[in-house]
Amino acid sequence: MRQEQDVLGKKSIADDCYYGIHTARAHENFDLSRVPVHPDLIKALAMIKYCCAQANSELNLLDSKKAQAICQAAQEVIQGQWRDQFSLDALQGGAGTSTNMNMNEVLANRALEILGYDRGCYDVIHPINDVNKHQSTNDVYPTALKVAAIWLLKDLSEACAFLQEALQKKEAEFAQIIKIGRTELQDAVPIMLGQEFGAYAQAIARDRWRIYKVEERLRQVNLGGTAIGTGLNAERKYIYLVNEKLALAAKIGLARAEDMIDATQNADVFVEVSGLIKTLAVNLGKIAHDLRLMSSGPRCGLGEINLPELQAGSSIMPGKVNPVLPEAVNQVAFQVISSDVAISLAAQSGQLELNAFLPLIAHHLLGNISLLKRTVTLFTEKCIQGITANAQACHDQLQQSLAVATALVPAIGYDAASAIAHQAFAEHKSVLQIAQQSGYLSPSELAEILQPERMTRPMSHANRKRK
Amino acid sequence: MRQEQDVLGKKSIADDCYYGIHTARAHENFDLSRVPVHPDLIKALAMIKYCCAQANSELNLLDSKKAQAICQAAQEVIQGQWRDQFSLDALQGGAGTSTNMNMNEVLANRALEILGYDRGCYDVIHPINDVNKHQSTNDVYPTALKVAAIWLLKDLSEACAFLQEALQKKEAEFAQIIKIGRTELQDAVPIMLGQEFGAYAQAIARDRWRIYKVEERLRQVNLGGTAIGTGLNAERKYIYLVNEKLALAAKIGLARAEDMIDATQNADVFVEVSGLIKTLAVNLGKIAHDLRLMSSGPRCGLGEINLPELQAGSSIMPGKVNPVLPEAVNQVAFQVISSDVAISLAAQSGQLELNAFLPLIAHHLLGNISLLKRTVTLFTEKCIQGITANAQACHDQLQQSLAVATALVPAIGYDAASAIAHQAFAEHKSVLQIAQQSGYLSPSELAEILQPERMTRPMSHANRKRK
Amino acid sequence: MRQEQDVLGKKSIADDCYYGIHTARAHENFDLSRVPVHPDLIKALAMIKYCCAQANSELNLLDSKKAQAICQAAQEVIQGQWRDQFSLDALQGGAGTSTNMNMNEVLANRALEILGYDRGCYDVIHPINDVNKHQSTNDVYPTALKVAAIWLLKDLSEACAFLQEALQKKEAEFAQIIKIGRTELQDAVPIMLGQEFGAYAQAIARDRWRIYKVEERLRQVNLGGTAIGTGLNAERKYIYLVNEKLALAAKIGLARAEDMIDATQNADVFVEVSGLIKTLAVNLGKIAHDLRLMSSGPRCGLGEINLPELQAGSSIMPGKVNPVLPEAVNQVAFQVISSDVAISLAAQSGQLELNAFLPLIAHHLLGNISLLKRTVTLFTEKCIQGITANAQACHDQLQQSLAVATALVPAIGYDAASAIAHQAFAEHKSVLQIAQQSGYLSPSELAEILQPERMTRPMSHANRKRK
Amino acid sequence: MRQEQDVLGKKSIADDCYYGIHTARAHENFDLSRVPVHPDLIKALAMIKYCCAQANSELNLLDSKKAQAICQAAQEVIQGQWRDQFSLDALQGGAGTSTNMNMNEVLANRALEILGYDRGCYDVIHPINDVNKHQSTNDVYPTALKVAAIWLLKDLSEACAFLQEALQKKEAEFAQIIKIGRTELQDAVPIMLGQEFGAYAQAIARDRWRIYKVEERLRQVNLGGTAIGTGLNAERKYIYLVNEKLALAAKIGLARAEDMIDATQNADVFVEVSGLIKTLAVNLGKIAHDLRLMSSGPRCGLGEINLPELQAGSSIMPGKVNPVLPEAVNQVAFQVISSDVAISLAAQSGQLELNAFLPLIAHHLLGNISLLKRTVTLFTEKCIQGITANAQACHDQLQQSLAVATALVPAIGYDAASAIAHQAFAEHKSVLQIAQQSGYLSPSELAEILQPERMTRPMSHANRKRK
Repeated sequence: MRQEQDVLGKKSIADDCYYGIHTARAHENFDLSRVPVHPDLIKALAMIKYCCAQANSELNLLDSKKAQAICQAAQEVIQGQWRDQFSLDALQGGAGTSTNMNMNEVLANRALEILGYDRGCYDVIHPINDVNKHQSTNDVYPTALKVAAIWLLKDLSEACAFLQEALQKKEAEFAQIIKIGRTELQDAVPIMLGQEFGAYAQAIARDRWRIYKVEERLRQVNLGGTAIGTGLNAERKYIYLVNEKLALAAKIGLARAEDMIDATQNADVFVEVSGLIKTLAVNLGKIAHDLRLMSSGPRCGLGEINLPELQAGSSIMPGKVNPVLPEAVNQVAFQVISSDVAISLAAQSGQLELNAFLPLIAHHLLGNISLLKRTVTLFTEKCIQGITANAQACHDQLQQSLAVATALVPAIGYDAASAIAHQAFAEHKSVLQIAQQSGYLSPSELAEILQPERMTRPMSHANRKRK
Repeated sequence: MRQEQDVLGKKSIADDCYYGIHTARAHENFDLSRVPVHPDLIKALAMIKYCCAQANSELNLLDSKKAQAICQAAQEVIQGQWRDQFSLDALQGGAGTSTNMNMNEVLANRALEILGYDRGCYDVIHPINDVNKHQSTNDVYPTALKVAAIWLLKDLSEACAFLQEALQKKEAEFAQIIKIGRTELQDAVPIMLGQEFGAYAQAIARDRWRIYKVEERLRQVNLGGTAIGTGLNAERKYIYLVNEKLALAAKIGLARAEDMIDATQNADVFVEVSGLIKTLAVNLGKIAHDLRLMSSGPRCGLGEINLPELQAGSSIMPGKVNPVLPEAVNQVAFQVISSDVAISLAAQSGQLELNAFLPLIAHHLLGNISLLKRTVTLFTEKCIQGITANAQACHDQLQQSLAVATALVPAIGYDAASAIAHQAFAEHKSVLQIAQQSGYLSPSELAEILQPERMTRPMSHANRKRK
Repeated sequence: MRQEQDVLGKKSIADDCYYGIHTARAHENFDLSRVPVHPDLIKALAMIKYCCAQANSELNLLDSKKAQAICQAAQEVIQGQWRDQFSLDALQGGAGTSTNMNMNEVLANRALEILGYDRGCYDVIHPINDVNKHQSTNDVYPTALKVAAIWLLKDLSEACAFLQEALQKKEAEFAQIIKIGRTELQDAVPIMLGQEFGAYAQAIARDRWRIYKVEERLRQVNLGGTAIGTGLNAERKYIYLVNEKLALAAKIGLARAEDMIDATQNADVFVEVSGLIKTLAVNLGKIAHDLRLMSSGPRCGLGEINLPELQAGSSIMPGKVNPVLPEAVNQVAFQVISSDVAISLAAQSGQLELNAFLPLIAHHLLGNISLLKRTVTLFTEKCIQGITANAQACHDQLQQSLAVATALVPAIGYDAASAIAHQAFAEHKSVLQIAQQSGYLSPSELAEILQPERMTRPMSHANRKRK
Repeated sequence: MRQEQDVLGKKSIADDCYYGIHTARAHENFDLSRVPVHPDLIKALAMIKYCCAQANSELNLLDSKKAQAICQAAQEVIQGQWRDQFSLDALQGGAGTSTNMNMNEVLANRALEILGYDRGCYDVIHPINDVNKHQSTNDVYPTALKVAAIWLLKDLSEACAFLQEALQKKEAEFAQIIKIGRTELQDAVPIMLGQEFGAYAQAIARDRWRIYKVEERLRQVNLGGTAIGTGLNAERKYIYLVNEKLALAAKIGLARAEDMIDATQNADVFVEVSGLIKTLAVNLGKIAHDLRLMSSGPRCGLGEINLPELQAGSSIMPGKVNPVLPEAVNQVAFQVISSDVAISLAAQSGQLELNAFLPLIAHHLLGNISLLKRTVTLFTEKCIQGITANAQACHDQLQQSLAVATALVPAIGYDAASAIAHQAFAEHKSVLQIAQQSGYLSPSELAEILQPERMTRPMSHANRKRK
């Protein structure tokens, strides 16, 4: 046990702890969600500390030997070491100070160890005076959040590309499978199954583009703004240098925010990003529900497609296989939609020079991006890629449908076509049968007009019929 | 009374009604919110009908005399006439069909009147065969929604520019008023009041840009896609022509969606737009709350600024004046944040070839944009422009503050500075007094370091002090 | 034009206005949602004014002639007169002060008129000193909100009873129509269509009970608490008396809150009520979606039931009829769910002695209750009551289903039953056919076990088969 | 490695795994949130399995030796053993089937082990035929969810009682500390600091009662309803017996739902419960924000109270201590409010005989209750109990306040009192000073009327002054 002291008094810390008194107090204060801070936030924060130590050292603001040790410690954290030292609760109060102090303490103690000192010898390397030099939680934490978000969004964008491709393959594969289209769950006019998957691919393509573009909005950071964005205690040279270094280290086109006061207190960019990934969730939810509808059955549903069988579906109904992955996707969509509310609440509750609720924003935003990335990948690999079509069932249903009467409208008008559809329904006959009886059009005209494939695209001039 | 008939039977319609049987049935079916369809949606839909009639006429698909009469009727609706004929409930079911039929019927009957016929003579001009020719609710309605949204967003963007400018004026006006900054509602380090308004202006500038850019996302329309986006019953020539005409008429850079099936069924762009205007709401809410905090008092609050007095604040407490406009702004923010949930729910609940819940989306999205436009304008004119500062109070508070001890950290280290701040608090003294006693620094060094103005910007190299 | 004056200066008011300067200013300040304050809130507030004037008069705190005139004016407002004088925006800031002053002014001026004075002669009857005597917005407004909510909830509870009854009639009507049950949209085991409607009726019965019981939570009012619930300026006798009078007038078992400070500042009861009516919305949404699924078709869907045809469904597809009312119900559910967020936000944003956002809460809560009442009524009358069953289609689908293999499990075990189901699927045969081939059970045993009706209830001991 | 087989084929399972093939597949299918199923859900499910085995054994439906082994295994899980065998993802699709199968497999294998068999010898004890006998996921899973929720709600109710008591102690402790009340953040009339804490205690008392009462709504379970609530494959005797046993084992007044079909498919009770715990979140959020406001400072804020110092507040500002626990409480409130949306979405998305999204509901509902329990406890112990008052500061502020002019209204009227307040503000004087100059009342009358303590309660008749 070693003794540490802060402004509130002394506290014993286990010898093998790299973290110190500030972290220990935070552990006691925040036993809440029992979900730890997102690992990518830790990684990004360590990278910032690395850059700060380097910048301070180059400007002779920090002893180079100390800086070197701090940098080595930071490098280790970046590479995933010492993860067990970063288990603070994601819902901690205090605007992220505890996470920042956790990092400062771990790096200080690990750096001390590297230099051959005991942990806790803060007169040699001090968590605040040295590791946190020219920094405040209020600049390093939001910066780390933005860096982590950009990293994760790149992964998510790739996952979307993968999904889009899988959908496009199905578009091609099902290009000739004609089926009934449905609006408001009622039979509408014919469509190709491939066209449906093409529409899904388009929606995901938009998401991919949105997520790709959103990096722009996150790249303006307030590193160097210190406590409230005014840059108090930081030198201009340091501010320029540390931002340059971070951009290089993180491999992101970061830029120092023009107005660091604004960038310290306003969280609107996180709301913007959350809104955009929620849009992906909405598209995923819609697609998942459609797949569940189209694969409903196997005997008493629409039965147009088959989803890959992933697991037995029931502990009581033998042979039942359920659309478990689309269901999970729907759940994820619900979660992301609701989580967006939490982010908006937290963002609009910022007060004056700071938003105290950044830890909640970080937890939900980074959590959602990671969740969506895993979801999109599983959805692609375990569901979309293995979908097959029931071409015969699609064809049979279409034959019975009444909505093909729509194709008669240009030739005979809405009211006559409507009467034909109604009569067909009432007499359990097909539209063709009743249309033939009606005598409006010749058998050959009818044969042409009522050809389903023809209904899946606009008319060219040649085959127009005037009333 | 005239008799009209549809597939469900006959119905009497009052003689002076321009709308017909479909609208009348919808009135009976949807007595729900008692809020009518947004007027700009009506205007945009009339403009689409105008363009369709013109395109059909030019391609000899519609008699030119009929087309001319329909166009004149549509022009009247665009200019705001016959508004009382469009009172259908905003929460109607049916994906907007009732609103589309409402328009078809009003235009048909008004066109009949123009040509000297009685209302209801649908064999001359038919609401569906003529006015709705080559159209479906499912292409004209989403297109109208996008056009109306773009119009309203332009207004909102201008309103944001107006607010941004007002905030920037205050930034300049308050540039020299130094005050305490606050993080987590606790005294932090000095800031200029002007810097605070500058940060608000930056946030609104981002909103303005977001709203300006979002037009791009809405400009892809499915006009010509008819029932499910396949273009059934529409000719290619017509599709190209009508889209060209609408772009010109609406004065928007519209484009035919590449995949009209996608554009018919997917509502993600509305979620995206809703997310972006929600971001404005979040910023407005944050600013409004800050203004309420800073103007709290007049005697027992922060009392740093004065809001314009707009009305007596209390029916019991004489002389009380409340921050009623910022409060209204906060309420609007709450409403827009929650309304975004409704839009997300509706969008993710689309099924197969259509989203049946577009009327809800239209109601909330157009309603929110209009609401925000009015809110931003009132906020600017009746609140921001008239704010004055209590420079003396700002100055006096700052003098007492302990957080200026932060400026000592580079010179004497965190722990020593911390001890000084604690002692000052305990002894009800100022940081300067205790720092002088402490003897770490000379009086002249202290005088320089503890100068508040110096704390509102980064250090230049010259005035750095090493520990 | 008459001149009125308040603490901010003079203002001209049109002669025929019953409202005065405070209302006029509020009109200028709050051009926001353009939806007026809910009429039942106005009615409840007028009733409170009536009771206050009576109580003050009885205690000789208000001249009886004045009181009589004020009471007559209030009575008129209660009965629906002067509605055009109450058009302030629902999203007004100021915690309801503008609405309260609106009422004070209209009653003062109308009372003056009754007594033969000109409007504006406030030295005779004063909107604040007389009409608002011993009151504050902060006690009358929340009290009015509770009274109005209770009135509307009683209506909603009745509407639910009406819906429950309609569902129970369908339960009886469809008691013998056997069909396939579905879990996760996949074929499950048999169920009676009547059982499905019985389950809906149960859910609505719970809602009815919840809504009925919630009156208890709203009946504690802070009338007499004045500005912050301490009762400043009000006499104890008056407080007791006015609460008694209001309970009688409103015909509700109201009670004075034990802690009026709490009742003035905390809005949790509105969150509670909102959560409960949201629960109704959730049930309605689920039922509406089920009905849309079961009525999907008419030829290419589940086609188990028919909804009443309410209007033509498409402007392009002749003969199409859509489930427009269930769709509207789903939209209402989305709206109520999202609106609950606004109420929660507003409630948790109360600060210290008051919640400034009660106008938003009132707007959403009363609006939602009214909306649900109309929705439930229309849903019952125009949809539920007219539903018919397609008994033949239900029967035919069930015959093909594989999930009846579940009934084999007690006799032959899960794995053997599973194998039979899979073979039946693969060979396009029925479970009975494969089970017969399998030889596990005799034909007579199979006939008994696979009888669908038997599967819609628990086993009695007699017909148990052991493996 | 052992081989297991299901309907989809064979799979190798590590020898030391108690779970089997169904769980293994689920692990592969659902790598989503990386948060495991809530431990209390596992415990409740094990208890249900225990009761089912007992009931089946007593009715001679299950071999008593097998039953005994299963019961012993279940008992171990109830006591917290084998927790590492239950790590399936909380967001799993499939309505909870994977969690149910996970339990069936672990109990089967552990029971086999107890009886001396190898894991995987399912011909001796079968996960489905034996452990899951007469059960379906669709009855055991919702039942387990209700049991777990009731257990957790009891804990939460106790935590609320603890908080209420702490608030009441502060009410007593601060009963004589007079301070300014504030409405809309503007100075209002006097109040005792104790009265403020009394109001908080009242709000929490309501929450405690709500949470206590809600057990009633959850106690109706569908155990025995099997696949869709019809009870298929279960005997009536078994259904009665197993419900009795569970009530005893869980120590809850459970009851078999009258309509088990309803109880299987409708999730409205979870929405109801979620709405009620959200109400607690709203109250906690309001209180936390108030505490942050009242403790703002230490020098430049309201400074009326002091919160216990829990940790150093800043990595850059020495001596700063932040209200970290109230901030965490606010974050928890945001999270619970948003999470309620997820629950509502999931509940209204149930389809026909089942709600496939129960796993999401379970995750959010049980998670929120646990989170709130820990939050309330920490808030009480680490914040509320240690709050101290700054009596002098409270007193000093009150002296300066203008709103005490309210007490003059009964004596001199609103307008005159208003003028006094305005003049005092303009001339930087006190209300008393201006009132004395004004001459409306004698010095002794003023002294009495303007006594602040007198303003914190209603008037008794004696001290009334008529205008």
